Amino acid sequence: MKFKLALAVFVAAASTAAIAGQAEDQQVKFRQSAYSFAAWNCSKIKSQVVEHPETYNKEQVVAAANSVAAVANSGLGALYGPGTDQATGWKKSRLKPEFFDKPEDAKKAAVAFNKEANELAKVAATGDVGAIKTQFGKVGETCKSCHDSFRIRD
Amino acid sequence: MKFKLALAVFVAAASTAAIAGQAEDQQVKFRQSAYSFAAWNCSKIKSQVVEHPETYNKEQVVAAANSVAAVANSGLGALYGPGTDQATGWKKSRLKPEFFDKPEDAKKAAVAFNKEANELAKVAATGDVGAIKTQFGKVGETCKSCHDSFRIRD
Ligand code: HEC
Ligand code: HEC
Repeated sequence: MKFKLALAVFVAAASTAAIAGQAEDQQVKFRQSAYSFAAWNCSKIKSQVVEHPETYNKEQVVAAANSVAAVANSGLGALYGPGTDQATGWKKSRLKPEFFDKPEDAKKAAVAFNKEANELAKVAATGDVGAIKTQFGKVGETCKSCHDSFRIRD
Repeated sequence: MKFKLALAVFVAAASTAAIAGQAEDQQVKFRQSAYSFAAWNCSKIKSQVVEHPETYNKEQVVAAANSVAAVANSGLGALYGPGTDQATGWKKSRLKPEFFDKPEDAKKAAVAFNKEANELAKVAATGDVGAIKTQFGKVGETCKSCHDSFRIRD
């Protein structure tokens, strides 16, 4: 099961983040970059599948879905070391401090994102626009749910 | 040929970037994010394959290589609209203005990155650490070569 594996990576990576020695600011910069790269790719899927289906281009949507899945599979847990809620990457971190008090909830959010993003990559490869739209909606819910729990409102 | 296709996407996307209407600052933010996400993934491969081979973890290196390939396949050309050399994303753009005078060279740099990154993803899947190291070196050369040509020195 791909997402169980990814979970193992998430957990292992989170606990060794400090050992890896990446400065907190660097971790925040990389996670802001990773999610922003995912967001750009989501915006392309949204445009071609939800808003302007007449512009749908299978190769581009497949590439975008693979990119969102790559972010989800990349072991982002390694970028959530202790103290990173107080650090500054491209800008001050928006991570809520309570992230560190709720490891089970954080794990659940990461696993949900991972599961739905990998499913989106699969569905994108079929070229079934209706199915892509539905699955894209599920991915978006995992983003929103994690933000509601763990990202400080702007 | 995967990279010919990606080239077509690169060119088509570059020419419609303005139509897509993404503000220049947004394009710069997304490309800085995309390359930074690639760089983070390269740093993991470097650590596990080049510097500390005793820490090699196949799943993590595969995920990292897939992430670098995803960036290379994501149609970054769409983020190089006119005027973006003067725009500000997370920070002021480091794109050299001559990028826009050398479309053939820019295309070559993008195609080289695409080709070597997709090859790295394939080689990573074999688990042959020596071969991964060699191919990782080739990817690194495509980063460096593009930076030498098109990125302003810090
Ligand atoms: C497991 C939790 C989680 C998931 C899943 C998640 N995010 Fe986020 N996201 C965060 C957190 C936390 C931050 C703040 C990072 C920081 O500043 O340290 C963030 C930051 C961002 C940012 C950076 C820009 C900013 O203003 O802070 C964007 C864009 C973004 N997320 C979009 C997305 C999208 C799109 C998805 C789904 C495809 C997604 N996120 C999935 C937790 C998550
Ligand atoms: C086709 C050209 C090209 C390729 C290939 C390329 N880069 Fe870059 N890279 C750029 C340009 C141009 C910028 C500046 C973007 C900006 O600021 O507008 C940049 C920015 C960056 C940044 C952002 C941080 C900063 O300080 O500007 C990082 C990190 C980076 N590149 C790493 C890499 C890595 C690692 C690779 C290969 C895996 C790579 N790049 C491949 C052209 C390229």
